[in-house]
Amino acid sequence: MKCLVIVAHGSRRQASNEEVKMLAAKVEKNLPEGFSGVEIAFLELASPSIEEAIDGCYKAGASELLVLPYFLSAGTHVAKDVPHEVAKAMDKWPDKSIDIVPHIGSLDSMTKLILSVCD
Amino acid sequence: MKCLVIVAHGSRRQASNEEVKMLAAKVEKNLPEGFSGVEIAFLELASPSIEEAIDGCYKAGASELLVLPYFLSAGTHVAKDVPHEVAKAMDKWPDKSIDIVPHIGSLDSMTKLILSVCD
Repeated sequence: MKCLVIVAHGSRRQASNEEVKMLAAKVEKNLPEGFSGVEIAFLELASPSIEEAIDGCYKAGASELLVLPYFLSAGTHVAKDVPHEVAKAMDKWPDKSIDIVPHIGSLDSMTKLILSVCD
Repeated sequence: MKCLVIVAHGSRRQASNEEVKMLAAKVEKNLPEGFSGVEIAFLELASPSIEEAIDGCYKAGASELLVLPYFLSAGTHVAKDVPHEVAKAMDKWPDKSIDIVPHIGSLDSMTKLILSVCD
């Protein structure tokens, strides 16, 4: 089964981290067939780390992971830090499959989401 | 006419700021009736500032502004800094109307946008 890993930046404010966790819980309730769960991971300042989340998914039996960088623009975090942390974690799982999708700010439907405030 | 003001954090990386500007241009092409345009504003590190964007909209004839905080979680920027900058700018425009909508990460359809990567 596949697992979606939402990678957020992480904040010193616990409420911000909780907000992302609550969003992940909502996403999990609506997962399409073929997906077994959603994990949240934080690049910095909060846990679980990317490595901990990836380990957790594979240990729980996931065969394939989809990593969504939950960032609005393609800065260094998206271009370098997230892929680096993912690659580091994957050293332990050479037989497993993982895919990093484009960051949330670049998804086609972001335009639609913004436009929803004009309704 | 109404104008949508998308307030992003702003980055030292010009490419990140350009990414938000390009997104705003896409949004502008699909505005519903009643909206005359989209302006981008940056809280810090880039220009135009919130005040400059608000002044620009009213000088261009906007009657009403909708401010969308383009932030993923409700940290200090969303809770204090953006409203503070907006209030400061509005001192100059006592007869005009402005509304700050919830930040992008809290919009209902964010769940749907995240789920789109699972298709």
